[in-house]
Amino acid sequence: MTEYKVTFLPNNKVVEVKAGSTLLQAAEKAGIIINSLCGGDGLCGECRLQVVHGKAMADKDAIAFFSKDEIEDGHVLACRTKVESNLTVKVPVKSRAEQEKIMMEGTTITYSEPEKVALYRESNESAVSFDPLVKKVYLELPEPTLEDNASDIDRITRELSKVSDYQTFEISLACLQNLTEKLRAHKWKVTVIFARHNGVGRILEIEGGNTSDKHYGLAVDVGTTTVVAQLVNLKTGEVLGVKGSHNLQAHYGEDVISRMVFACVRGSLEPLHKAIITNINHLAQTLAQENHITTGDIDSIVAAGNTTMSHFLLNLTPCSIRLEPYVPTTAVYPQIFAHEVSIEINPQGILEVAPSIASYVGGDIVAGVLACGISDQPEIRCLIDIGTNGEIVIGNNEWLVCCSASAGPAFEGGGARNGMRATKGAIEKVEIKDGKVTYETIGKTKPRGICGSGLIDAIYELVRNGIIEQHGKFNVLHGNPRLITEDSEIRYIIAYPEEAETGKAISISESEIANLIKSKGAIFAAIKSLVDYVGLTFDQLNAIYVAGGFGSSLNIPKAIAIGLIPDIDVKRVQFIGNSSLTGARMALTSVKAFEKSLSIARKMTNLELSNYAPFMHEFVAALFLPHTDSKLFPSVRYSH
Amino acid sequence: MTEYKVTFLPNNKVVEVKAGSTLLQAAEKAGIIINSLCGGDGLCGECRLQVVHGKAMADKDAIAFFSKDEIEDGHVLACRTKVESNLTVKVPVKSRAEQEKIMMEGTTITYSEPEKVALYRESNESAVSFDPLVKKVYLELPEPTLEDNASDIDRITRELSKVSDYQTFEISLACLQNLTEKLRAHKWKVTVIFARHNGVGRILEIEGGNTSDKHYGLAVDVGTTTVVAQLVNLKTGEVLGVKGSHNLQAHYGEDVISRMVFACVRGSLEPLHKAIITNINHLAQTLAQENHITTGDIDSIVAAGNTTMSHFLLNLTPCSIRLEPYVPTTAVYPQIFAHEVSIEINPQGILEVAPSIASYVGGDIVAGVLACGISDQPEIRCLIDIGTNGEIVIGNNEWLVCCSASAGPAFEGGGARNGMRATKGAIEKVEIKDGKVTYETIGKTKPRGICGSGLIDAIYELVRNGIIEQHGKFNVLHGNPRLITEDSEIRYIIAYPEEAETGKAISISESEIANLIKSKGAIFAAIKSLVDYVGLTFDQLNAIYVAGGFGSSLNIPKAIAIGLIPDIDVKRVQFIGNSSLTGARMALTSVKAFEKSLSIARKMTNLELSNYAPFMHEFVAALFLPHTDSKLFPSVRYSH
Repeated sequence: MTEYKVTFLPNNKVVEVKAGSTLLQAAEKAGIIINSLCGGDGLCGECRLQVVHGKAMADKDAIAFFSKDEIEDGHVLACRTKVESNLTVKVPVKSRAEQEKIMMEGTTITYSEPEKVALYRESNESAVSFDPLVKKVYLELPEPTLEDNASDIDRITRELSKVSDYQTFEISLACLQNLTEKLRAHKWKVTVIFARHNGVGRILEIEGGNTSDKHYGLAVDVGTTTVVAQLVNLKTGEVLGVKGSHNLQAHYGEDVISRMVFACVRGSLEPLHKAIITNINHLAQTLAQENHITTGDIDSIVAAGNTTMSHFLLNLTPCSIRLEPYVPTTAVYPQIFAHEVSIEINPQGILEVAPSIASYVGGDIVAGVLACGISDQPEIRCLIDIGTNGEIVIGNNEWLVCCSASAGPAFEGGGARNGMRATKGAIEKVEIKDGKVTYETIGKTKPRGICGSGLIDAIYELVRNGIIEQHGKFNVLHGNPRLITEDSEIRYIIAYPEEAETGKAISISESEIANLIKSKGAIFAAIKSLVDYVGLTFDQLNAIYVAGGFGSSLNIPKAIAIGLIPDIDVKRVQFIGNSSLTGARMALTSVKAFEKSLSIARKMTNLELSNYAPFMHEFVAALFLPHTDSKLFPSVRYSH
Repeated sequence: MTEYKVTFLPNNKVVEVKAGSTLLQAAEKAGIIINSLCGGDGLCGECRLQVVHGKAMADKDAIAFFSKDEIEDGHVLACRTKVESNLTVKVPVKSRAEQEKIMMEGTTITYSEPEKVALYRESNESAVSFDPLVKKVYLELPEPTLEDNASDIDRITRELSKVSDYQTFEISLACLQNLTEKLRAHKWKVTVIFARHNGVGRILEIEGGNTSDKHYGLAVDVGTTTVVAQLVNLKTGEVLGVKGSHNLQAHYGEDVISRMVFACVRGSLEPLHKAIITNINHLAQTLAQENHITTGDIDSIVAAGNTTMSHFLLNLTPCSIRLEPYVPTTAVYPQIFAHEVSIEINPQGILEVAPSIASYVGGDIVAGVLACGISDQPEIRCLIDIGTNGEIVIGNNEWLVCCSASAGPAFEGGGARNGMRATKGAIEKVEIKDGKVTYETIGKTKPRGICGSGLIDAIYELVRNGIIEQHGKFNVLHGNPRLITEDSEIRYIIAYPEEAETGKAISISESEIANLIKSKGAIFAAIKSLVDYVGLTFDQLNAIYVAGGFGSSLNIPKAIAIGLIPDIDVKRVQFIGNSSLTGARMALTSVKAFEKSLSIARKMTNLELSNYAPFMHEFVAALFLPHTDSKLFPSVRYSH
């Protein structure tokens, strides 16, 4: 079969593909990640490329995504364009910018200091003592005598029960099979690695001599967008480093649903499973190298993710999660050897995955509850985790109720021309005063786009300045010079072309604002529904913790003012960053915290909103800034 | 290197071996099992062969084992004879007879009806209800709805907890990985196989549809000499069949010590491990075929054996068991998948090995205690298991004490020219009256030798008739026509050459009687030491259970009269056959019995006789028929 060369600019990466392959497939082969919200269905228009040399067969349906000029300049959708000759293709900044980093830095993201602070946020962590899930203990055993000729393993567990909380231990046959020789070769001095498993001590490995100094663990937040790992010294509890990488599953679809469609309809489970394993192995490798250890010294991993991600991680099909009645294979994941899913740490090291509650309320939320500690105290508190799904938990030490609402990718930078994730170059703060726009970007660089916290600020500022009405439409009477019309839609320019890294204006359109209002409306409606369901009012929430990938900060008063978060005293609202990662680290470093995660999962009741009639009413009522019922937001007053 | 052909008669089995190989190695290559008590060290004189053609280099030390005539007839020891030309070798009946059966019948022994009765002895079995360790349950699950969208595995365990005693279940990742598809493909009808594991339910396999009819288990007694397996229908509890085979480890040594020497000094562990696995696989295969099932329908095995056999079975080194201070790798064995040691049953099927107490008190004794139920009642009872080691347990529902004494192979037919195991052709009953000898053989065939129960009878009859004195020496004054001198030793003829299958007389010599007295002395001394140790007298033993491979019967009064068993009311003494097998079957078919085996092991205290000064004194005192202290045997009176 004929093969053609495709050269990707600006990196001059060349691949050969069969005639008829799509440019998306060619890019994948080249290791270039192209944005694709819909997973290659030609629906989202995210995978734009520019053919600069050669003839490409663009699908005529795809033309709708481009202006006439763009079509003439060779702009195509990668997923709808077949390779029928040798091609030279340019990957535009918007389609590649973030992902280029992956290629250049080997998929890792280096966090800025403020971001690290957010990731390290202590939250409730001090509430549990340092007592890792997997321990490594050096033992000097008394030699056996005729008076004391207990079996070799009994000699070990006898000592182990003195220095641990376990009285019962389980051990694999493999671990026993060379024990007798090892004990004698090392003169009864051994180091034992053991984990908590179903309430007993599970001996994972017995090493000759004293190796207790080399004992590390990994806490992993398996996000749909970003996978973040922290390396922890399990001897001291010290966090040695944190790395993030874009979830490589993005190859197969931007959001959870399109990845499930790939796994269950268009493709298969295997590549999605492998993608996430590659992410984790790479993060482990990078963190190990930077800290001058080997991955073999990592004895345990605790991962937290939404239910679908947890299924992908464990190579479990997500296909019944996707369709009504939304049933996962399992909600509580077995403790496994990490090697069972090809994670390359100590071959006897284990992987624990934080338990889920339901198909759309996952272990990330359980970890979040653990992190903010709402299950520890009698006061009623609330956790709001904002991502593609908004997940809400309300409760105390006696009960926990949760729900999940699809919010769309708006707060993660999806569905907007200039939207982007909270990484370097993203506008994260916006202020508009007297017609002048000021903003701050992550990393203090030229802006490349605008992330969730920036969009919240922007909408607030637009309403406050009367540039948009409270229902989200532009107040065209205003005659603002920053308002322009492009592709027959009004857009508000936040950064002019000359300010931006891309050389193109960073702006927001009416339909994008409508999207954001839908997103915040869905989240608020979920909170309101849940509060009503348990018979409370907002005032009765002693605290609200807001979690999510907003970068280092979230302006709480502005988030309240647009109606995303209930209008309670701002002193009672706290942004806690990546609570899933914090919770995973807590479970990794504390048996008690790990046990608590299981009890949180058992205790939590899920309210299925798709099945709960009042939710749709609440959603419609929330499609206003801040809300159609102004009594719900007594502190919010727009003065025009 | 030069190779020579060795032809083994009478089967005309031909093998080629390198020059310098021993005849024992050649026989091994030919698949012929040659008796070898010492494991090939030239010490026991058991591996006699006759070179009928060709030149063989016999070791000159080996000459001591043969008469002049025998040497001239080409008799050699297989282990001491090197192959330096093409040879034709005859395997004498005595060296091959039993093992030939292995070759002809594919290693299985078919038990006679009385033997089966002995193997099926109910003992204490009715005390526990039928509730197998591994269960197979067919479930018709309700389909999930939005109101009831528990995870797939929760849906299963919810139903499972209704029909089992478990509230908590553990499951492997492999078992979860295709569950979702399976449930839907089989319309929510599945069969679950689950085992008791550390007190929780361990789900081993989930099969589509109803397969609960195919559910079998294997109880195995891993004896040093014989491996016996029973196939049990785990749906009904019915015992479908029993098969035995000679422990193939006999290649490497007849007794436990010589096999340990092979594993730790002369050879390696692997062949000994493989031998026992071959035994079990073959028994499983044969039993499955005869009952028209496949081995894949066997879901569980419970094996009981002495500590060394259990270590060999699990491929654990026995090397520290052998030497002071006699430490096994483990006393409690983990539940493993049978495939971990290459046992070919259901790949998800499990193997449990009965727990040991100490290096020389194994799971066979624990199973024996389970079988006779001495741990169930407040009355103090005693179990005596007679084999190469004599193992004694005394106790009740509150305490259990045990000990083990090396008795030698005398009661299993070792160490005597005409001794043999309790199989077809063995004289098992002897009576001498007015100079006439009457006997019974197993299988009612011509006698081939004499087994343990026959030897006990013979010694008793010899003393009773004044043919031997109470210290075991022949009363030569007597002038008995059955007394002959051979190789300068007096022998008593039990069966004349014309009566015997081999065409040679079956007789017993003074030194063989001395051996038997040593064996019975060791066992009695162990019982006496243990009774004294716990501060009891024989009268306080409410019952004595005698177990061992004596075939279908043991004459209790005669066993008392020679001083093997304490002199208590014979109504309180019961022969219970292979109690290890019975106990293994009980554990296989009853969770309660299995749990009891663990508690028996925990509760039992081992008295190390090698470390207990009074034992040697008791041993010396017991080297008399019945005992030097006649007050210990008030009912025994020899009338001459």
